[in-house]
Amino acid sequence: MFSRQQLISQIRQKKSFLCIGLDTDPEKIPLFLNDFPNPVMEFNRRIIDATHDLCIAYKPNTAFYESYGAKGWQNLIDTCNYIPNDVFKIADAKRGDLGNTGQMYAKAFFDQQTAGMSFDAVTVAPYMGADSVIPFLQYKNKWVILLALTSNDSHEDFQLMENTAGALYEQVLQKSQNWGTDEQLMFVVGATRGEAFLTIRKHAPKHFLLVPGVGVQGGSLADVCKYGMNTDCGLIVNSSRAIIYASNGKDFAEAARVEALKIQQEMETELFKTGFLK
Amino acid sequence: MFSRQQLISQIRQKKSFLCIGLDTDPEKIPLFLNDFPNPVMEFNRRIIDATHDLCIAYKPNTAFYESYGAKGWQNLIDTCNYIPNDVFKIADAKRGDLGNTGQMYAKAFFDQQTAGMSFDAVTVAPYMGADSVIPFLQYKNKWVILLALTSNDSHEDFQLMENTAGALYEQVLQKSQNWGTDEQLMFVVGATRGEAFLTIRKHAPKHFLLVPGVGVQGGSLADVCKYGMNTDCGLIVNSSRAIIYASNGKDFAEAARVEALKIQQEMETELFKTGFLK
Repeated sequence: MFSRQQLISQIRQKKSFLCIGLDTDPEKIPLFLNDFPNPVMEFNRRIIDATHDLCIAYKPNTAFYESYGAKGWQNLIDTCNYIPNDVFKIADAKRGDLGNTGQMYAKAFFDQQTAGMSFDAVTVAPYMGADSVIPFLQYKNKWVILLALTSNDSHEDFQLMENTAGALYEQVLQKSQNWGTDEQLMFVVGATRGEAFLTIRKHAPKHFLLVPGVGVQGGSLADVCKYGMNTDCGLIVNSSRAIIYASNGKDFAEAARVEALKIQQEMETELFKTGFLK
Repeated sequence: MFSRQQLISQIRQKKSFLCIGLDTDPEKIPLFLNDFPNPVMEFNRRIIDATHDLCIAYKPNTAFYESYGAKGWQNLIDTCNYIPNDVFKIADAKRGDLGNTGQMYAKAFFDQQTAGMSFDAVTVAPYMGADSVIPFLQYKNKWVILLALTSNDSHEDFQLMENTAGALYEQVLQKSQNWGTDEQLMFVVGATRGEAFLTIRKHAPKHFLLVPGVGVQGGSLADVCKYGMNTDCGLIVNSSRAIIYASNGKDFAEAARVEALKIQQEMETELFKTGFLK
């Protein structure tokens, strides 16, 4: 349960719209953690403890957990359950399947009772259309974050395909608004080119956008804010590796906090600049 | 490891191109199985024992396992490991993410060592383009089955979007052939309208196609074969619920076998009709 209003109030309170990506790779975390019974959870817990007052969302990418079997999946569950309830929990799963399978995916991420965890939002791929998105939207107070324009090089393979109705990603932005409101639907929009947000905001002026690709992937926060921010902020900007792998030593959590704080402060400046904070 | 040649030889030997979808829902399996320590595995093992000489592939849909937490994921692993090695193992996961995340997804389904299971193939969604498909293609002797034209009503939302280069699904068929060969790439093609295979075969004459949507979803096997079969057969036709839920009693495995046999015999007829079997 995390309403649009709660999200906005978190942003106001923390002066931040930072999402921290928990893409925890057992081969990249500090070596000393291997002395603990569960190195991945030790890492995640310390990162969360050190940063949760600076960010408004955490986003574990499910691939990093699935690739370590049932134990990995249990880590995903334990991570979701460890995140404090005032922080928005995003399962970056990029799922999408139809009918009863779609319902099962929704259950996997939203249904505490059977799945053992309940994220506030899940990222969904739009290729199969409405049928694959609606099962997630049927959960009250849960969010779908639909892929629109991604930040990778090959996003142009299909997302920029164009006809008289606009590019594919624009049609995703438009059509999906028939399936759910801006109280339950957000979009993933890559940040490599800030001006792209002008087109996005033409189609989705009010929606929250989840923006990966600031930092390592090369986008500029100032540009994203200039072109993408709306009166409710309307942005959740993700950073993963730059924060969680800021140090490879015993001070990794403190180093992560330092990086997160830097970004939070940049964000605070932007929030004042646009008048969201006064 | 499952080469194109091995697949063809399995089809020839079993006179079948049937894939059985292991979409095992704990709420739909016979009640008496609840007396066993692991009802889902008891169900899957009995279905596999009863049908593996009639089908050339099994396809667990990962959603049905994920929705039951780490225990569900362990069932997915155990199911994959239980399938005999002469049967093609498809993870119907519809994954797709870029770069290092894509590599993690590939590991999750192909890397026995870290993930505890190794499928022969995984279904992948094309929305993010080459970056999201190539990590899977980097595994030798493994397959990507890329979503092209799905069988659900809302496939028209985006897949049929058209410009001068053709429909989106046609561009998926075309572009993806630059990323991998027909020894490692197949396509998901829904079977609700047999004539659609004419267009598919124009773009992908040699590729194997995974065809859901025969049976419950309404496609006709004869039509699929008429328009979709090539000289190597080139088809893997899936049926899930019609087989695995054929009976809700103690005879569920025998009933599944009867249904699978019916389909196998129809397939045998088609294979003779087109001259693949002589």
